Amino acid sequence: MSNVVFFHAGCPVCVAAEQTVADALRDDVEKVHLGIQKNRLKEAEAAGVRSVPALVIDGQPFHINHGADLADLK
Amino acid sequence: MSNVVFFHAGCPVCVAAEQTVADALRDDVEKVHLGIQKNRLKEAEAAGVRSVPALVIDGQPFHINHGADLADLK
Repeated sequence: MSNVVFFHAGCPVCVAAEQTVADALRDDVEKVHLGIQKNRLKEAEAAGVRSVPALVIDGQPFHINHGADLADLK
Repeated sequence: MSNVVFFHAGCPVCVAAEQTVADALRDDVEKVHLGIQKNRLKEAEAAGVRSVPALVIDGQPFHINHGADLADLK
């Protein structure tokens, strides 16, 4: 069982990645909207997330296409 | 059941994405090494793949981080 967090910002690129990739994973996925849950920005950054949408699986960041830079969500 | 193809080139970024994301999907994943299976390059390109590793799920391309540009595999 992996720890999976999907960071997004509600953008069209994010929604496509959520519905097609994140929701297709076997493990449960916690979804975090960084435009709203700004208190999670530091955690995303610490995991190496530079843009959304991104999956963090057991601490490893996987950027999926490119919706928005993390810097633009601050 | 989705049609899922994972395009890669055997690079470290590709291997991490394969083991952590592609192998964590519920559906079966066809794995295509574009450095070896060059006859599949056109198909990847037609699906909108610009770099590897990338998943193509029901025709939609999802680039995962960045290992190598498709142009460099030709």
